[in-house]
Amino acid sequence: MKIAVDAMGGDNAPQVVVEGIERARDEWKDLEFTLYGKETEIKKYLKNDQRITIVQTDEQILGTDEPVKAIRSKKDASMVLAAKSVKDGENDALFSLGNTGALLAAGIFIVGRIKQVSRPALMPTLPAENSSLGVNMLDVGANAEAKPAYLQQWAVMGSIYAHDVKKIDQPRVALLNNGTEYDKGDTLHKEAYQLLKSTEGINFIGNIESGDILAGKADVIVTDGFTGNAALKATEGTATILLHQLKDALLNNGIFTKMGAAIVAPSLKGMRKMFDTSQAGGAVLLGLKSPVIKAHGAADSRTVYYTVKQIYDMLANDTINKANKYFEKMSAEK
Amino acid sequence: MKIAVDAMGGDNAPQVVVEGIERARDEWKDLEFTLYGKETEIKKYLKNDQRITIVQTDEQILGTDEPVKAIRSKKDASMVLAAKSVKDGENDALFSLGNTGALLAAGIFIVGRIKQVSRPALMPTLPAENSSLGVNMLDVGANAEAKPAYLQQWAVMGSIYAHDVKKIDQPRVALLNNGTEYDKGDTLHKEAYQLLKSTEGINFIGNIESGDILAGKADVIVTDGFTGNAALKATEGTATILLHQLKDALLNNGIFTKMGAAIVAPSLKGMRKMFDTSQAGGAVLLGLKSPVIKAHGAADSRTVYYTVKQIYDMLANDTINKANKYFEKMSAEK
Repeated sequence: MKIAVDAMGGDNAPQVVVEGIERARDEWKDLEFTLYGKETEIKKYLKNDQRITIVQTDEQILGTDEPVKAIRSKKDASMVLAAKSVKDGENDALFSLGNTGALLAAGIFIVGRIKQVSRPALMPTLPAENSSLGVNMLDVGANAEAKPAYLQQWAVMGSIYAHDVKKIDQPRVALLNNGTEYDKGDTLHKEAYQLLKSTEGINFIGNIESGDILAGKADVIVTDGFTGNAALKATEGTATILLHQLKDALLNNGIFTKMGAAIVAPSLKGMRKMFDTSQAGGAVLLGLKSPVIKAHGAADSRTVYYTVKQIYDMLANDTINKANKYFEKMSAEK
Repeated sequence: MKIAVDAMGGDNAPQVVVEGIERARDEWKDLEFTLYGKETEIKKYLKNDQRITIVQTDEQILGTDEPVKAIRSKKDASMVLAAKSVKDGENDALFSLGNTGALLAAGIFIVGRIKQVSRPALMPTLPAENSSLGVNMLDVGANAEAKPAYLQQWAVMGSIYAHDVKKIDQPRVALLNNGTEYDKGDTLHKEAYQLLKSTEGINFIGNIESGDILAGKADVIVTDGFTGNAALKATEGTATILLHQLKDALLNNGIFTKMGAAIVAPSLKGMRKMFDTSQAGGAVLLGLKSPVIKAHGAADSRTVYYTVKQIYDMLANDTINKANKYFEKMSAEK
């Protein structure tokens, strides 16, 4: 199993990438890595090159680059060359901490989508109250427009993923909607509900409202990319503002409050832990011929390590091929 | 200025309703109230009936009732009779703490919409970091489907409201979208952007992402009801879960932590204050011939008082008529 790594993506590249990859390399003996990036930079942090190959690249896609344009014009960028190696069969999966939009473009235009999948979808893991496994939500923004059939495909792929990687026997799949009753929503979501209800092989539990995304009521939440993007960002934005306010209240209200803050700090760590989903790895771009995974730009080496674990689980379980076979069977039956 | 009050709606009706109305009555001498509900129940809490008339009603719409059906079958419900009094010109505004869907239905089918407004929209006030005025967002769920022209009308009405009630000179109006660049979004939002950009009389500042809803970057956020509903509920759900986790961390981690919690408690109150939008009143159903306002079912008498203030400001400023005139002028120019 060979993983192509864009070593130059992310805020702390290539250091955290190299550190995380080395830890993962030591753990899983059947993994090989190819790191695409500046060789001198990578070698600064690389302790030993066992099962790690470096491919020198001279260009780099920045966070500010326009995604599709960057993929097309920066042909020697680390992300582009890593993606090409997957397309060419040299590697089995693509991993980057870089520009999300560019990785989506590299996934779709270079790695390529599964023939029967209409639109690939982006799926992160969000924290869930009372569950360390978190909840997977897709699509959160790879597509601005959606059709009921897309949502059905995403439900199938999300369910296979939750089974293989999160080891959930019959993942609970829910549809993000504006009410829990079956007849809620606009035309898209009403039709998607009916389609999901009749989809074989998934455990569809009905509609879920976005107030319950973090409540642990579902393992996989299916949504169109526009609504999913809004719900994800509202969740992240609210958590960020609240935690910021909390920190401010505890630390900027005089020495007495600060002392109290020191006392409660260990207990607040448990709370922070719920919102730490780094053990779940990165966001997966599902619907492509190979696993393409994006970890957060601010990810540390621990997250890089867990993202490799996530890719390992997808490769070892042949997760992509299972979806592939499901859709082949589905289209043969039509 | 006469306000029709559904005294039986909400979790703590009619007590909090009566208490809040009496406080408001004592404050604004030019207000008169008609309370629709069980006379014996209302009289239990009413201290003096100056400028307060009670209309005895025998039926009541419950939170579990199917909205449109309830409005049609429970013809003697407090909410329905209050709405009819507004339609008949006996009262100038409708106020309820009851079933949101039923109030929407009563507003649309009984009070009636402004002729030029295609679809009324529901607009609550959300908290905003660094602004006690909060942010108004519409539509958050009165409509599952939307067209660009609806969003334009909502922007105009939201802007007039923010001017009249929140005393903001040129309210910043933003479009909720999946990116800040002008060309972001699905077809609906791309078209809405162009329409808003060319709308006279509003201060359109461009797109806003849902991660910034609470950030105080806009005074009015315009969105289709499906996305708005998802973003609102995600915001509320995240805040609820985080505050619950915080409480749990502080109070269920032994006596030592509890002591620390007692020390930091006064500082945390400031944080809670940011999320307390009761001074903004209730959610407005904009696009109707008269103000129709819904306060939260769990609202206390303080919120009831502030919601009356909100209605007072709308009536005193002739907010509804301003929108009416804007749309009449707009359609005359076409």
